[in-house]
Order: sequence, then structure tokens, then C-alpha cells
Amino acid sequence: MNWEELARELAVPTESKIVLFVIDGLGGLPRNGRTELETAATPNLDRLAKRGCCGVTDPVLMGVTPGSGPAHLALFGYDPLRHRLGRGILEALGSDVEVREGDLVARGNFATLKDGLIADRRAGRIPTIECERICAKINAARAKVSDPEITLFPGKEHRFVARFRTSGLSDALTDADPQKDGKPRLPARAENASSERAASLINTFLDEVVAVLKDEPTANAALLRGFSLQPTIPPMSDLFKLNPAAIANYPMYKGLARLIGMRTYNAGSETSDLFDTLEAHGNDHDFFYIHYKKTDAAGEDGNFEAKVRAIEEADQFLPRIEALRPDVLVVTADHSTPALMHGHSFHPNPFVLVSGTALPDDVASFSERACAKGLLGRFPSLYAMPLMLGHAGKLKKFGA
Amino acid sequence: MNWEELARELAVPTESKIVLFVIDGLGGLPRNGRTELETAATPNLDRLAKRGCCGVTDPVLMGVTPGSGPAHLALFGYDPLRHRLGRGILEALGSDVEVREGDLVARGNFATLKDGLIADRRAGRIPTIECERICAKINAARAKVSDPEITLFPGKEHRFVARFRTSGLSDALTDADPQKDGKPRLPARAENASSERAASLINTFLDEVVAVLKDEPTANAALLRGFSLQPTIPPMSDLFKLNPAAIANYPMYKGLARLIGMRTYNAGSETSDLFDTLEAHGNDHDFFYIHYKKTDAAGEDGNFEAKVRAIEEADQFLPRIEALRPDVLVVTADHSTPALMHGHSFHPNPFVLVSGTALPDDVASFSERACAKGLLGRFPSLYAMPLMLGHAGKLKKFGA
Repeated sequence: MNWEELARELAVPTESKIVLFVIDGLGGLPRNGRTELETAATPNLDRLAKRGCCGVTDPVLMGVTPGSGPAHLALFGYDPLRHRLGRGILEALGSDVEVREGDLVARGNFATLKDGLIADRRAGRIPTIECERICAKINAARAKVSDPEITLFPGKEHRFVARFRTSGLSDALTDADPQKDGKPRLPARAENASSERAASLINTFLDEVVAVLKDEPTANAALLRGFSLQPTIPPMSDLFKLNPAAIANYPMYKGLARLIGMRTYNAGSETSDLFDTLEAHGNDHDFFYIHYKKTDAAGEDGNFEAKVRAIEEADQFLPRIEALRPDVLVVTADHSTPALMHGHSFHPNPFVLVSGTALPDDVASFSERACAKGLLGRFPSLYAMPLMLGHAGKLKKFGA
Repeated sequence: MNWEELARELAVPTESKIVLFVIDGLGGLPRNGRTELETAATPNLDRLAKRGCCGVTDPVLMGVTPGSGPAHLALFGYDPLRHRLGRGILEALGSDVEVREGDLVARGNFATLKDGLIADRRAGRIPTIECERICAKINAARAKVSDPEITLFPGKEHRFVARFRTSGLSDALTDADPQKDGKPRLPARAENASSERAASLINTFLDEVVAVLKDEPTANAALLRGFSLQPTIPPMSDLFKLNPAAIANYPMYKGLARLIGMRTYNAGSETSDLFDTLEAHGNDHDFFYIHYKKTDAAGEDGNFEAKVRAIEEADQFLPRIEALRPDVLVVTADHSTPALMHGHSFHPNPFVLVSGTALPDDVASFSERACAKGLLGRFPSLYAMPLMLGHAGKLKKFGA
């Protein structure tokens, strides 16, 4: 029996309120002896560390660097090794494309086809506005066809998302993308009998695209990769008996949250919008996931100072969460993004839990190294959810 | 999905170099308040502890004492509960017997048969030289038979290893050994249909042995136990995309390493030979396993002082490993062997990892108790491999 099965058996709805504040990519590595978090002035986080109990979490396994999808699933109480999210679905979520059960999605590139070969897989990185025009042209050409309903959603430059909406599709498909310039177009291939219909439908569509774009000078073909169905993941209401809300500035995190049945709110692009939204809906839910992105973005850029500033900004908003008086408040990260590494890493995440039933430890500041000495020890991110539910009184006793 | 499947998906070959230095049986228990490791002067290990991050590892499960086989498999990234090594195969590896896929091996004793009963299961502990003569006599008697090819390899005193080489053998067999004096010889019994051929072949051979040895005064029969096939374990090149080398003085550790596809080098019997070999082949591999045995041997002997001296000797050779400038260096043990217990134990192993992406902790000396306070916490030995691969940049991101 795994945690998800156990949750279904033990979780009970209650009035108590949980807030999970995710500071994306928070953990880092030292420059001049101190990490980004150790460098930042974080009076509010330090105060929480003093009041609560601390630990560090591994999103997947020690040494394994997670993408945002698996790292968040783990924090939401879903085993990331059981629930796999395809590249296409993450791209669709990140582009705010509405995806329903049964939809097949893929990441797309416009390309330049010349004398039957792909001369440029990125169609000279056409401007985004061109991409929008070409997507609209293809969508218009298909407007009369209702099944399969195929829609392209423009992204940046030559990129787009393709959504195939009809019944009985499977995603056991190879990429319709030769991956290299100078090769002919490559059809998608069914990896087993269940996906033959999808392969045929995709390849017919890609031929149509070439016909529709025959007079375009640079973007006159489309490549598709990372085909994925919307995964079927039991919603949080089912497993954890929660009525959960997601508050995020970026589409991907809202999309991830919708995948597991969270109600999402369209916070504006400012950090303060997150907390305005929280205050507006603070009585409508018993679980709030709030996502703060700037720390991860700065880490990806390798910008130590910007990451320090982002951490300090996140810290300043904590009193607005506390004002909601949640029964359980957790502040942690999905994964680490050390500025030194310019990307996600496998390092464990600092974690603090504040609740009336938390046994306070002697951690006096919120950092990677201080939290590692906390009473919660080192544990898989997957167990953040049972810990939050337990402290919120939302799990029945197991056995008699 | 388990770690091995995940590794197959995520591991990528790179130029970076990993060294795993195993100080066998390192962990101990205090005499006058200090363990062997706490008593020893270990300036180099202490320096590594200061630079790197520390933890302690459990080879199998808390409280479970491992043999050398499972303890090493875990350190090499193979779940010791999934990959079982029979007694026969370990004895064969320890005796430097060449074993190929399909070979069936067993541990053997010469015994004294009198009036149809086993009068002495150890044939009066005949001298090793006698054992060698008798093995040669049996091997000579079988020299004409090419299939099955059965060969005995003499060990110490009455002990030997038997190797059955033919196709289609199975190791689902009971021991051909009554385990007690005063009982008649016991044939091997097939535990299922697949091993009937092996049982019949073994029992015919054991009758032949009695015929060949009928004029011997003491060693006139053979007992066999622990029948095992070479296990099929996916090689490290497959799972972890490594080109690994094993450097060890003792046959068993080289044999274990060969089982998972390591290239093994015949270091001489001196400790310095290990490091000469490392220096000679330092550019030929991206993963080096170096095995130091004396600590375990002293622990098994219950010799606290000898174990302290062995630890001090191992410590002195560390600069020769560091001179190779590995990207990741781990120093740890396969299992503990407290001198106080005269044998392997279940205590966790001190562990230090040094790498450019390691977050240093405040552990200032290398010992069981100091490492337990390190940032890595307490973790299964199995995760040493993902940790080393992650720090070496040899694992792709999991998911998007």
C-alpha cells in the first residue's frame, strides 16, 4: 500500500486551513561561503523557522534533478515516479492551453522546407507575430472540421502547441521531427497498435499544413514532438478530501494545479497580486498553493544577486499569509536552482512547517544548512502532504 | 519505477571522473569512549570532511547486518534486496574462480565416509596441500569428459569450490550435505522441474567422487552446498553509462566488481599497489572503485589497535587519490565491523562526498558520530550512486 491509497482511506474534510507557499528554486550553493538564502535578509522566514519545525526534502531521489512537473507533483502528495508528465503536456500547461481528458498535445516548431528537405528546423526564428499569423491561417483552414478538432496555439518565435481533440487517441508515438536540418520530414510512428489512429491523423494533418503554407517563404512546414495525453491523476478532492486553490503568476503552475483538480486563480503579473488574490479568496478553500517564481528565474540566469533580492521580496509578503491565520503553514521549494549552476539541481529543499501541533526545534534561521538540522530531518517531498494533512487534523488514525 | 529503471533513463556518459574509496568494515564501537575511527589520527579524512558534505548510510535496512556481497551491490547502485548473490557464487568469487553466465557453482567440503555414514564432515581438516592433491586427482579423473565440464578448485584445509559448466542448469537445489556427522550422504534435490537435470548431474558426480577417492584414508567423499548460478545483473555501463574500474587486493571484491561489468585490475598485495594501479590507469576510466581490506580483517579479529592502525594507513593514501583530481570523491564503507563484535554489523557507515557542487556542512572530523550530523543525513547506501552521478553531472533532469 502506498501513500496515495492510504490517503484515500484516511483523509477527512475539516474546516482547518493549510497554506503551502512554494518559493521556486529556493535552494542554492555558496558564493563566498554563503548561499543565496543565507545571504538574503529574511526576518519573516527566520521568525517562522524559530516558531516551527524544519527539515529538508528530496523531490525525487538524492542526486536526481527534477523538472518543475515532477517536483510539484511530489509536493502535492503525488509520487512523481508513478505519475509521469509528457513534454507536450507541460508545454501546453505553460502556454495556458486548455487541455481535457483525451486530448493529445505536442510541442511544435515551424520549419523551412526546401526541395523536400528541412532546411531550417526553426524557420529562421520567425517573429512571434508571424507565428501567430501562421497558426491563425492553419486554424482557419481547419475551421470547418469538427472531428478531429485540431488547434495550434502560438508560442514565442517559431514555437507553438498543437492540440488534437477527438476520442480514442494514444500517445505511444515517436516524434514527427527529424531533429536535424538537411533531412526530409519525418512522420510520427505508432509505437503500438493503440496509437495507429493518432499517428495517421497527425501525419495527415502535417501534410495539410504543408499544403496550406505552400506560399509561405520561410515557415512552410511544421514539426511535432513530445506527444502526450493529459495524464489521469486522481484529483486532490478525491485523495485528500481537500477543496484546493492555486494562486500563481505563471500559466504552467496553474496548469499543473488544474491537472490535479485545484481551482486556479488568475493572479496578475505582480508579486502583490498573489497576495491580493489570497486575501480575496481566503475563506473559499481549505488548501492554498501559492507559487513564487522569481527565485527560480534568477537562479536559471545564474544571477546570484537577483536571486537574493527575489528571496527578500518573497520574505516581505509572508505576514500577508500569516494574517489569514492558517492552521498549517509550510514554506519550501519545489527544487533547488543554484545560481552557480544556472539551472535546476538535485540539492534538497529547505522546509519549515508552522502549526499549533508542531514541535519547535532550535533552528533559528531559514536556510539549507540550518533546516537540515531541524527535527523533521531529511525526507521525500512526497511526505510534505501527509505531514500538512496530519498537522491540520485531516487524517484519521490508521488502524485501531 | 525504481532507481535502476530511472538510471537507465537518466544516465549520460560524460568526461567527469568519480572515485569511490571503500574502507571495508570502517565503522566501529567505542572502547574507552571512542570508536576505532575516533581513536585513529586521520588528518586527511578530517580535511575531506571539512571540505565536503557528510552523512551515514544503511546498506540494507536499519538493524540488518549485510554480507560483503549485498553491502557492495548497494554501494554500486544495485538494490541488494532485488539482486541476490548465492553463497556458492561468493565463495567462487572469493577463490578467484572464473565464472561465466550459465555456470553452476557450490561450496564444497571433503568428508570422511565410514560404513556408509559421514564420520567427519571436515575430513579431519586435512592440510591445504592434501586438498590440492585430492582436487587434482578428481579433476584428472574427469579430464576426458568435456560436457558437463566439472572442475574443483581447492581452498583452505578441507574446503573447495565446485564449478559445473554446461547449458541449461538451474540453482533451485537443496544442499548435498547432511549438515551433521553420523548421517548418510544426502543427494541434492531439485526444488522444481527446471533443476532436475542439475540435480541428477550433481548426484552422479558425487558418486564418481566416492569411487575415485575409495582408497583415500580420510578425505573420501565430497559434500556440496549453496548451489548458485552466476546472477544476471545489468552492467554499470548499461545502467549508469559508466566505464568503471575496480582496484582491489582481494579476489572477492574484484569478482563482485566483474559481476556488474567493472574492468578489474590485479593490484598486488600491498596497500601501495592499489594506488600505483590507480595512477597507472587514472585516465582510462570515469569511475574508480578502490577497495581497502585491512580495517575489516582487523575488526573480524576483534583487534581494536590493528583496526586503528589500518584506518591510519588508509588515511595516509588519500592524497594519492586527490592527486587524480576526481570531480566527485566519496570515502565510505560497505558495512561496519566493530572490533568489539568480532564481525560485520548493522551500524551505519560514515560517508563523505567532495565535489564542486557539494554544499559543505560543519562536520569537522570524519567519524561515525560526526558524519551523522552532516547535511546528507542518514540514507540507504543504494543512493550513494545517484548522489555521485548527480554531482558528477551524469544524470539528465527528470521530467520537464
